[in-house]
Formats: sequence, structure tokens, C-alpha cells
Amino acid sequence: MTEARWRPDDTHEIAELIKDIDICMFVTRSNGSVRGRPMSNNGKVEFDGDNWFFSYRDSPKVAEIEADPRVELAYIATDQGTWVSVEGRAEIVEDDARKRDLWEPDLEAWFHGGPEDDRIVLLKVRAERIHAWARGEELVVEPGAGVQRIES
Amino acid sequence: MTEARWRPDDTHEIAELIKDIDICMFVTRSNGSVRGRPMSNNGKVEFDGDNWFFSYRDSPKVAEIEADPRVELAYIATDQGTWVSVEGRAEIVEDDARKRDLWEPDLEAWFHGGPEDDRIVLLKVRAERIHAWARGEELVVEPGAGVQRIES
Repeated sequence: MTEARWRPDDTHEIAELIKDIDICMFVTRSNGSVRGRPMSNNGKVEFDGDNWFFSYRDSPKVAEIEADPRVELAYIATDQGTWVSVEGRAEIVEDDARKRDLWEPDLEAWFHGGPEDDRIVLLKVRAERIHAWARGEELVVEPGAGVQRIES
Repeated sequence: MTEARWRPDDTHEIAELIKDIDICMFVTRSNGSVRGRPMSNNGKVEFDGDNWFFSYRDSPKVAEIEADPRVELAYIATDQGTWVSVEGRAEIVEDDARKRDLWEPDLEAWFHGGPEDDRIVLLKVRAERIHAWARGEELVVEPGAGVQRIES
């Protein structure tokens, strides 16, 4: 499968919207339902179509992603009038160098073992379609197709 | 199927959390992905396990619900430290009396025809499991099982 690629022009506007929201609802197709839990995407990371999260290997969401990788990331800042829906596919990444690179001290509240802990994996969510409502505008962004503005 | 019923004791705490959030991300299993869009649940409605939304009959989410009724409502107020994940099943309800009853003047911004407009339907989302993170606590609430507090 040839994958359409994200270009910086596609993602720049979305990056600006979500960089300060940080915590999203990470929604999986779980057995029999659609299930969300709040997760931080590490605000510092430059958004290029990929969202990175830390998770324990044995958490239910990892099993859910292995069974069905389709996920939704819901970024909501109602007080700012910003809602961003990221549809994508999640992948489990076990890469120690990447874990150290993405690690932030704040994460120690959830992951006491730090980035060296083998029980901790990365979840990479590659966006396939992004729909954003912000500043009174509505945008749909898809890799290769650029930013489409919807009149409402 | 015998359906476990929500009791006021189960829903009271959740109602307090979500009543002021109003706008959630309404997430469906769409064809090939998991898709969200912000929707208002009409803040005034007393939460008894059911969430009500207005929608145009011909909107993609109605077709998605008809194909697969499993949905997630993500209520997020990061500034208040509140995240609520409502897993449930959605149903299309065409009931003019109910539409008039749930109607709010603010809705006219999206639905110019008002509650009498036949193109407008109600979406009723019956919660089947609620997971809330708020005030440093973590709660799981299921009908019939009551409120379970998780130590974190």
C-alpha cells in the first residue's frame, strides 16, 4: 500500500491548535464498545501527523490496539472554542532510544520506572484524517489532500 | 436481553461532572475509522444515563449509528481536571413531543428550522459504562453495579 504522506503545510495549522491542549481522549475500538481514556501527547513534540504516547505494555488499550488499530484522538478545549478530531491508526513501538528521546520528567507521575522500564512502550498514532473546529472555522485535513475549509 | 438499569445513586456524581461541560466529542465507528465531532448535550437536561442530541437525519453520523450503534462520548474539561468517557449505544429517535421538550433556543444556530423540522431527529445515547477522572479520583460506573472507586 502506498501511503499518502503528510506535508508540513498540511499539519502546521493543526499543530498550532493542539500543541497547548496536550491531553486528549484516546479512543479505541474495544471489545463490544468504543472506549476512551485521557492521555498526554507530550506537548513539546512537533506534530507531523504522528502522535506519540507512553503506555504500559500490559494495559487494556494495548491489547485493544493489537486487536484493532483504528483509534480516535479527541482534543477538546471548549473554553478556547477548539475541537480537533484525529482519526488514525495506532502502532505499538518498542524502541528504547525513542523512549528516551520523547521522555519528559512529568511522565514519572504515571511511569515510575522511567524510560528504561521495559514494561513501558510507545504508542504511535499516525493520523489519517483530521477534522478541526476552531476560531469559528471548520477544517478537514488529509495527507496529500491538504487543508480543506468548510463553510458553515 | 434484560438491561441493567441506572439508579440515581449511580448517575448523580457523573451528572455533577458533565452538566457544565455541555459539549462533548461524539465518537462513532465509521466505515474504516473511529470518528468524532463536537456536539452539545443540552446542559439543562438531568443526566439519568441517557444523553440526548439533535441531529439532521441525513448527516453521516446517523448512517454510522444505523450501521453500528456503539459510540463514545468524550467530555473533557482539562482546565478543571475533569475527563469523562461515556461508552454507550446510540439510537435514532423521531418523536416530535420529545424534540419540543428538549429544544433550546441556542440550537437554532445549527438547526434553523426549529424542533418542528422533520429533517431533525434526536440521538439518544444510553450509557453502558462510564469512566471518570476528576478531582484526583478515578471512578467507573456501570448500571446495576454502582460507583467503583479506583486507587491510582
